[in-house]
Amino acid sequence: MTLDRAQTPERAFDEGGPSLADVGEQALLRALREIAGASPPALVIGSGDDAAVWSPEPGRDLAISQDALVEGVDFRRSWISPRRLGARALSVALSDLAGMGARPVWCSATLCAPASTCFEDVLEIQRGLCTAAAVAGCAVAGGDVSAIVGPLVIDISVGGTLATGAVLRRDGGRTGDLVVVTGTLGRAAAGVRLLLDGGNELSERERAWVDAELAPVARIGEGLQLVASGVRCGGDISDGLLVELERITEMSGCGAEIWLDRLPVEPALVSDFGAAWTDLAVGGGEDFELVAALPEAAVAALLKSWPENLAPITVVGRLRNGAGLDVLDSEGGSLLPRPHTSSRHFA
Amino acid sequence: MTLDRAQTPERAFDEGGPSLADVGEQALLRALREIAGASPPALVIGSGDDAAVWSPEPGRDLAISQDALVEGVDFRRSWISPRRLGARALSVALSDLAGMGARPVWCSATLCAPASTCFEDVLEIQRGLCTAAAVAGCAVAGGDVSAIVGPLVIDISVGGTLATGAVLRRDGGRTGDLVVVTGTLGRAAAGVRLLLDGGNELSERERAWVDAELAPVARIGEGLQLVASGVRCGGDISDGLLVELERITEMSGCGAEIWLDRLPVEPALVSDFGAAWTDLAVGGGEDFELVAALPEAAVAALLKSWPENLAPITVVGRLRNGAGLDVLDSEGGSLLPRPHTSSRHFA
Repeated sequence: MTLDRAQTPERAFDEGGPSLADVGEQALLRALREIAGASPPALVIGSGDDAAVWSPEPGRDLAISQDALVEGVDFRRSWISPRRLGARALSVALSDLAGMGARPVWCSATLCAPASTCFEDVLEIQRGLCTAAAVAGCAVAGGDVSAIVGPLVIDISVGGTLATGAVLRRDGGRTGDLVVVTGTLGRAAAGVRLLLDGGNELSERERAWVDAELAPVARIGEGLQLVASGVRCGGDISDGLLVELERITEMSGCGAEIWLDRLPVEPALVSDFGAAWTDLAVGGGEDFELVAALPEAAVAALLKSWPENLAPITVVGRLRNGAGLDVLDSEGGSLLPRPHTSSRHFA
Repeated sequence: MTLDRAQTPERAFDEGGPSLADVGEQALLRALREIAGASPPALVIGSGDDAAVWSPEPGRDLAISQDALVEGVDFRRSWISPRRLGARALSVALSDLAGMGARPVWCSATLCAPASTCFEDVLEIQRGLCTAAAVAGCAVAGGDVSAIVGPLVIDISVGGTLATGAVLRRDGGRTGDLVVVTGTLGRAAAGVRLLLDGGNELSERERAWVDAELAPVARIGEGLQLVASGVRCGGDISDGLLVELERITEMSGCGAEIWLDRLPVEPALVSDFGAAWTDLAVGGGEDFELVAALPEAAVAALLKSWPENLAPITVVGRLRNGAGLDVLDSEGGSLLPRPHTSSRHFA
């Protein structure tokens, strides 16, 4: 039956044209934003950043974000326990708030699960999510459950507060700013490779990389500290440093270079993966770390005042005139080929 | 590889026990709420109502809800155009805000789609969503896109404002309150039957029922009017009047009766579907109407002041002592068997 087609002038499903695989994730996101941008805005920051920002009252803003984990794309049941999966789904969503410098206040979750799913598995997912929410100081505001003839889907929406203007924006970078990252890079991407390789015998170090993938922690405190220190440009690098920094340069109207010799990576990443370590460290996603850009004159004070209980920050490059992102072996050094980026969506 | 199982003490996926189909949707929701209820609350209303409510500042509350449409469960591609699907997904989510008496301010959407999906279909979904958002005065705050090896999933989160305390709660009913509904009942459920029957020749009336299913409008204005009139108990009946009223009686600590002769239904529903009309009108979901309960003394004023441009309201029953929900043929009349309710989730 094609009731609706007969009845409405607009396009029906599956009438042809390029597929999402043809178009790719980035072009898809751009096109969706263009459509959303045409609707009447009531937002301080619309879509296109880690999170959208709405101002319910003068002086206080609200950051809103949403992120889904899909079985077979983002995880496999054999990789992860349901309790960890619930916690991971929340952390992934909270990382977008961290990338804004926001303080989480609520989360809400939709779970789509086949009717054959074990009841106890679903409760474990909820327990993992609620425990992680409690740690983040974030209320669980309900959500939705739905049957699906297909994979498990967990989609989390989160909200967090910001003082007006005190936010890490993708469009806040200026030529000459230094680029910093939190923590170490490439560990989660290394974990994904090990999971995909499927070997059963892992060293303690390899196990830690797998844990970095399966049990990430959003850098909430680090985002808050960056904002409190006056930093106004940044984001999370869950899609990889390269992709996030390209978004920042595009939205800030400048270029950037990163210096491989400055990247905070474990020596074992280089020894275990050889030349592929750069793909993991700057191209691989799943590192729920933050990147930020700030004036060179402000960097020393930031480093000096950085609390010891937070993930350390490291200078890894600089915003510069022009456009695009160059990967150099060192500051003032030679240009290297662009490392491979990994996107699991519509690639 | 069972890395995680070896490593963490908690349950792995698929270790056995009852399935979601064994347990059913209502028991699942209750169990999920119990787990969420144990986490530290910062909410005025936690999960268990149409939406959760958070108070960012004294005097102003924020209602938050999330709702998913899953292909094969909630819709089929042959039934609906992608543009209508986007609008419908938003309306379904907004209906939960209407059920709280909240004014929508933002929405956010996750779309999971197979890589083979037509790019243009996805843009049409976004256009439908954004147009519906503009009509509702609701900003589109981005969201997420993800690949899926499975059906289309559109999951929408929405936020809306409330003056503190001016909210339609499920637990706000009192014995003796009269029960009112907006609009007419059973039209969307009739539309679903026609869609499932698959016939191609529809009368104008049947087409209108199908439209009621495919292009619902959330009763935002009606929810605001109820709250402005002092009503404090209610919800949306997207899961059917019977199911919603049972939730209200359970949370309000009372029972209820509804009077079939008072239900606002089109005569054609009775003539076309015979005895099954009650299943459609009180058991069938998808009517994005509201139900509310208010003191008998307040009903006359509400009816008199009700604006003509809103869906009309009708008294259909009463809250009473005890527990449970009785369906009577009329006020003071005979008890009838409970009509069939339809749930597509884990039934």
